Amino acid sequence: MKQNIYDNALFFKGYEEIRNRKFNYNNLLERPNFLALMPDVKGKVLLDLGCGKGEFANDCVLKGAQHVDAIDISVNMITAAKERYKSDRLHFQQISIEDILLKSSHYQLITSALALHYVADFEGVIEKVSHALCPGGVFLFSIEHPISTANKGEEQWILDEKHTIAHFAVAHYRSEGQRTQNWLVDNVVMYHRTMETILNTLIMNGLQIEKIVEPMPTEEAMELLPSLQKEQHRPSFLIVKARRTI
Amino acid sequence: MKQNIYDNALFFKGYEEIRNRKFNYNNLLERPNFLALMPDVKGKVLLDLGCGKGEFANDCVLKGAQHVDAIDISVNMITAAKERYKSDRLHFQQISIEDILLKSSHYQLITSALALHYVADFEGVIEKVSHALCPGGVFLFSIEHPISTANKGEEQWILDEKHTIAHFAVAHYRSEGQRTQNWLVDNVVMYHRTMETILNTLIMNGLQIEKIVEPMPTEEAMELLPSLQKEQHRPSFLIVKARRTI
Repeated sequence: MKQNIYDNALFFKGYEEIRNRKFNYNNLLERPNFLALMPDVKGKVLLDLGCGKGEFANDCVLKGAQHVDAIDISVNMITAAKERYKSDRLHFQQISIEDILLKSSHYQLITSALALHYVADFEGVIEKVSHALCPGGVFLFSIEHPISTANKGEEQWILDEKHTIAHFAVAHYRSEGQRTQNWLVDNVVMYHRTMETILNTLIMNGLQIEKIVEPMPTEEAMELLPSLQKEQHRPSFLIVKARRTI
Repeated sequence: MKQNIYDNALFFKGYEEIRNRKFNYNNLLERPNFLALMPDVKGKVLLDLGCGKGEFANDCVLKGAQHVDAIDISVNMITAAKERYKSDRLHFQQISIEDILLKSSHYQLITSALALHYVADFEGVIEKVSHALCPGGVFLFSIEHPISTANKGEEQWILDEKHTIAHFAVAHYRSEGQRTQNWLVDNVVMYHRTMETILNTLIMNGLQIEKIVEPMPTEEAMELLPSLQKEQHRPSFLIVKARRTI
């Protein structure tokens, strides 16, 4: 059973509340670093996996993409996306990343933002992505960083006697698989994978690593959202840009 | 001033003592994983950076390498290497990795085992390695893992109330640069670099990542050396195999 936490009413409300904040980890940390790695989309055929409300997919259309397919498992998200953005060049579909069927060598760019840590069968998805990319096509994705996902629910930020952060707790790094988090609601299921697994799975599926980024906030971002200072101690996210070799 | 800790008499004595133990992190964890990534050396021209007493370089000669150059900064190490191994196809030189001058497109394989975390100018070394490799040549190296090197001297293994390991402390991951460790003697200088820096430096210098390994000991190894069980919580080492693209 694929997790569809974004259709949990309580989770969705909490998520909305965070994303509607003027300053959050998405717009100050993940987005600028992700967008800095984006190739020019003009005239290209794109796929966005885990598109949420479709803002990024729509931006790609506005920047001249020939066609954008965008999928999300959540009915809430896809309903909102379809209401907000209408274009002949934009197609939203409510389906899980694991279940989607993709044409061979069809896309010049496949993107996925902070969705793949919810997927149980990472290897299956990467195989599908590689198959669906044109030779020379790019796969750009962000995911929760393996350092951040390793821990099995123990307290993660350890404070010193002055109640300032001493360190981040890493444990069970080698034990890949399901983790249960309490983020907004209890028992949000995600999957921990090592850096070794993430990168080698790409390489073994013909995707050559072009760049990895462990995003660090700018000084300005840390002033706007002081909790981002914790990123100094360990990265929340990992962003990978890879290219299908011919 | 390049660090030459292996010519510190106290350090060298302690190091010898560890390496002479029947079971250690080298022979149970780093070596088997490193050797599993080795290409066939038959007829090839090789360079080993930080060769220690030259055992690996000599093994490559025995396996049919055409010629092996092997360097180490330590007089102790190179003296021992020259005494132990003599072959027309084996050349030892006492020089630092930073200072060596290398011919262009000369080597089919360049290796380095647990030496590059002592090097201040990582980028300079990688540039030189790429330049010295033939197109299609392989660079295989092991290094202390960024998760392990991040911390700035705070206690690293945190125990619970039963004195068993609760977690490993990660802090200052983004703050790259010098770290001072007390390993065998005080003030051993090494350098912390992020995964991002290590991998992107290779890629930017024309070295395509073929595999990364975060070595995990086998069940048998953990029985022989129980402290290896800690590797479950975080990897000590990172091994990278990369290839110079044509």
